[in-house]
Amino acid sequence: MTVAPSAQTADAIYDQVAERLAKDAYRPRALFERFGIEVLATTDDPCDDLAAHAALAADPSFPGRVVPTFRPDRYLEVPAPGWAEAVARLGDVSGADTGSFAGWVIAMQERRAHFRAHGAVSADHSHTDVGTEPLDDPERVYRAALAGTASAAEAVALRRHMLLEMARMSCDDGLVMTLHPGVRRNHHRPTLEAFGPDTGHDIPLRGDFTDPLRPLLERYGTHPNLHLVLFTLDETVFSRELAPLAGFYPAVYVGAPWWFLDAPDAVHRFRAAVTETAGFSRTSGFIDDTRAFCSIPARHDMARRLDAGFLARLVAEHRLEEDEARETAVDLVAGRPREVFKL
Amino acid sequence: MTVAPSAQTADAIYDQVAERLAKDAYRPRALFERFGIEVLATTDDPCDDLAAHAALAADPSFPGRVVPTFRPDRYLEVPAPGWAEAVARLGDVSGADTGSFAGWVIAMQERRAHFRAHGAVSADHSHTDVGTEPLDDPERVYRAALAGTASAAEAVALRRHMLLEMARMSCDDGLVMTLHPGVRRNHHRPTLEAFGPDTGHDIPLRGDFTDPLRPLLERYGTHPNLHLVLFTLDETVFSRELAPLAGFYPAVYVGAPWWFLDAPDAVHRFRAAVTETAGFSRTSGFIDDTRAFCSIPARHDMARRLDAGFLARLVAEHRLEEDEARETAVDLVAGRPREVFKL
Amino acid sequence: MTVAPSAQTADAIYDQVAERLAKDAYRPRALFERFGIEVLATTDDPCDDLAAHAALAADPSFPGRVVPTFRPDRYLEVPAPGWAEAVARLGDVSGADTGSFAGWVIAMQERRAHFRAHGAVSADHSHTDVGTEPLDDPERVYRAALAGTASAAEAVALRRHMLLEMARMSCDDGLVMTLHPGVRRNHHRPTLEAFGPDTGHDIPLRGDFTDPLRPLLERYGTHPNLHLVLFTLDETVFSRELAPLAGFYPAVYVGAPWWFLDAPDAVHRFRAAVTETAGFSRTSGFIDDTRAFCSIPARHDMARRLDAGFLARLVAEHRLEEDEARETAVDLVAGRPREVFKL
Repeated sequence: MTVAPSAQTADAIYDQVAERLAKDAYRPRALFERFGIEVLATTDDPCDDLAAHAALAADPSFPGRVVPTFRPDRYLEVPAPGWAEAVARLGDVSGADTGSFAGWVIAMQERRAHFRAHGAVSADHSHTDVGTEPLDDPERVYRAALAGTASAAEAVALRRHMLLEMARMSCDDGLVMTLHPGVRRNHHRPTLEAFGPDTGHDIPLRGDFTDPLRPLLERYGTHPNLHLVLFTLDETVFSRELAPLAGFYPAVYVGAPWWFLDAPDAVHRFRAAVTETAGFSRTSGFIDDTRAFCSIPARHDMARRLDAGFLARLVAEHRLEEDEARETAVDLVAGRPREVFKL
Repeated sequence: MTVAPSAQTADAIYDQVAERLAKDAYRPRALFERFGIEVLATTDDPCDDLAAHAALAADPSFPGRVVPTFRPDRYLEVPAPGWAEAVARLGDVSGADTGSFAGWVIAMQERRAHFRAHGAVSADHSHTDVGTEPLDDPERVYRAALAGTASAAEAVALRRHMLLEMARMSCDDGLVMTLHPGVRRNHHRPTLEAFGPDTGHDIPLRGDFTDPLRPLLERYGTHPNLHLVLFTLDETVFSRELAPLAGFYPAVYVGAPWWFLDAPDAVHRFRAAVTETAGFSRTSGFIDDTRAFCSIPARHDMARRLDAGFLARLVAEHRLEEDEARETAVDLVAGRPREVFKL
Repeated sequence: MTVAPSAQTADAIYDQVAERLAKDAYRPRALFERFGIEVLATTDDPCDDLAAHAALAADPSFPGRVVPTFRPDRYLEVPAPGWAEAVARLGDVSGADTGSFAGWVIAMQERRAHFRAHGAVSADHSHTDVGTEPLDDPERVYRAALAGTASAAEAVALRRHMLLEMARMSCDDGLVMTLHPGVRRNHHRPTLEAFGPDTGHDIPLRGDFTDPLRPLLERYGTHPNLHLVLFTLDETVFSRELAPLAGFYPAVYVGAPWWFLDAPDAVHRFRAAVTETAGFSRTSGFIDDTRAFCSIPARHDMARRLDAGFLARLVAEHRLEEDEARETAVDLVAGRPREVFKL
């Protein structure tokens, strides 16, 4: 019997949870197995030595697949405080001289190889926009940024050039490229100062993909090795930009509804906005993005029910045959994520 | 029996309306009582002496609650014709010297106190955008604006600084702050010249809240005295910006669908876009914005039916228990407006 | 019996199609008659002599109505390669001296008259945006553009001025003006170079109408001779801008959902977004935009079913009487397109 959370039931629920968590059956590895998790990906700093991943992979008592994800945002966010220090550390860890842009590129490539050697399948990027316009002289601007003499516009332009470079690396090494743009992080500075980042005040922004991604897609959008998965918190781009882009570019997939949009009505709006142009096969299938380990089964269950409900409507409206809907329902769970993320 | 309006039925309907309006039962005070109106708020110029409000409040034969609303738009719209004259008059009425920005602030505070003394609970603001970036030297820009030497960019910047100042005053005096941005007023100048403002050609604009409101929210978004109610005619901000903002900032409430969006399908889109992130408690409940007194009961009835219908869907989908839905239905009518508007 | 397309059924379907196409009953004129097409409009270059249209009109064996459409985009896209050559050719064909802006205007007027004489009812325009701000000195900018000395900003400004001029001509000659803005054409340059334009990589952009169209609407929005039909691929403008504009300006109609949005869910979103503000009478009714002749009956059938379904919902929700719904269903098919396009 489920009990609705309330002031009256809080203590009983707390006791029940505490009692369960004390049991061996609720320890992380037991839950990992019970949840039927096929792959779990962490996000990691490029300088991380991934020793924990190596230890887990070497542990014969744990058969699960846990892989790192290359998350280099802070090494691209040129104007952010600490960028120069981060880049210097990147040089130390990689053995490349990050005093030049050419060295930055070599360092990134080296660290990506390190991640790939530890099982990574993707590189994840989250900046305010997805601009990818190349610079004529990235070397000059990079050195200016290190010297603290780059203008604000140059710093943004350098980050965009770097993101383009990351796509080039994905073509070379095969890491899936995922973009999660369009969030004003740490909107409330007093809360940031008191409690640090990721404390509930990241607020979405309006975004565009058509023009900002054009330089990247002209170069790599038809490259057989690139899988580019586009996520958004701005629903307006689903029908206007993401579905048309995924409909043309073989490299582009529309990512599952994410964060604020990972909820029943929003998921149905996503499918309704994307399917008529891009179908199901150009979407990522459900990718869970949770930090709450115990929420994983419920979130996958919800995603499957919602997609099944959407498919059922298409069948009821005679827009899809029942066997096609069944096949698609399975594909969205088992086929899409495996293909899109090269699992 | 209702009769559909048509060329054939027009005369009969007209006669019926005319006959009713001649009866005592259809005079404004009788309707006010029959409609069960708990609070009616007018919008008023800051220079208004509110004598009519005082007279009505002092009239023992009228027990209803009719309050003024502080609506200072024209005193903030620096580039608009007549701004300097309006500000001079504000100085006359308030007794403050509005030849300086400091005096403008004092005059506003004085008028707000006058409004509060006459029962006002809120201050309403409608500008093209909701920018609130502070100026380094508002005094200099204000004096330049009075002298007619401020640039167009400075005039906009001054208005944004003034709006930020208004939020500070709301923290001090407790007037609820409502924002109704994003309309190009008087789109068709020939109609404006022939018939004046508010003649049907105000056309909405795309809008943003996340970045423009950030200076205000960093300063006052967690202030216990501030209630900031955000309205929009750009549906795209419901899920992208307003719900996330209301989900974090204790001061922020999402206003009811307004104007072009105060209609059945739009209202359901509003609830579907907002609820999954911000729930029901962070919305204003139904606030009628009509100029047509007789439309009030029908519009409240429609709002209640639509919210009830939305709640019923959540119950049917097993996303809400029936008792929770009942409680929420009442709260949206009786609880939210009272709390949000401090009634 | 319909057969689902698949690898197994491909050959049989191909054979069936090939067999049918060989029959006289499947030749274009036979299909034109069988499809019950009342009017078919092609889009044509202003320099086209329309000889094929003249021949068809003069052919007593073909009673159908096929009309040209004036599509002058390339003569307005100043910065595009080949513009100067196109304008020179326009001068040759029209007999006007297009070495001046005044001559360009005369040439356009002459060609429009030529199109009208061949049965054209509308002029179709598709640029990135719908800006219509007039230039103070179009003559100077035009000559600079011809000389190759206009700046990029001047080139765009000249195109906007020319679009405004086109609206003026529509008031004079009565050609319906249709706008299809907001597409980044030929997004993938390598595909453009290999396969040419219109090869599947035109990607929509975010758009606005309220401010960009204001100069045009202030001048001509109430002109009795202007019908201005606005199409979009950015769904966000339906409720925010297009419905309010069509609700006020007698000249403005909201065009049917187009291209990526001409699909069941998108069509219902369109009606839901537009109807509550602008009703049905201010929309264009279904206008097919296909290049696939054989798709015409299916697409009209779909449009009619979708509108009928939308109307049925309004009846079921007691928002429309059944007789009103029946009348509207017919009007959307037979009344709106005839009135809007002056057929």
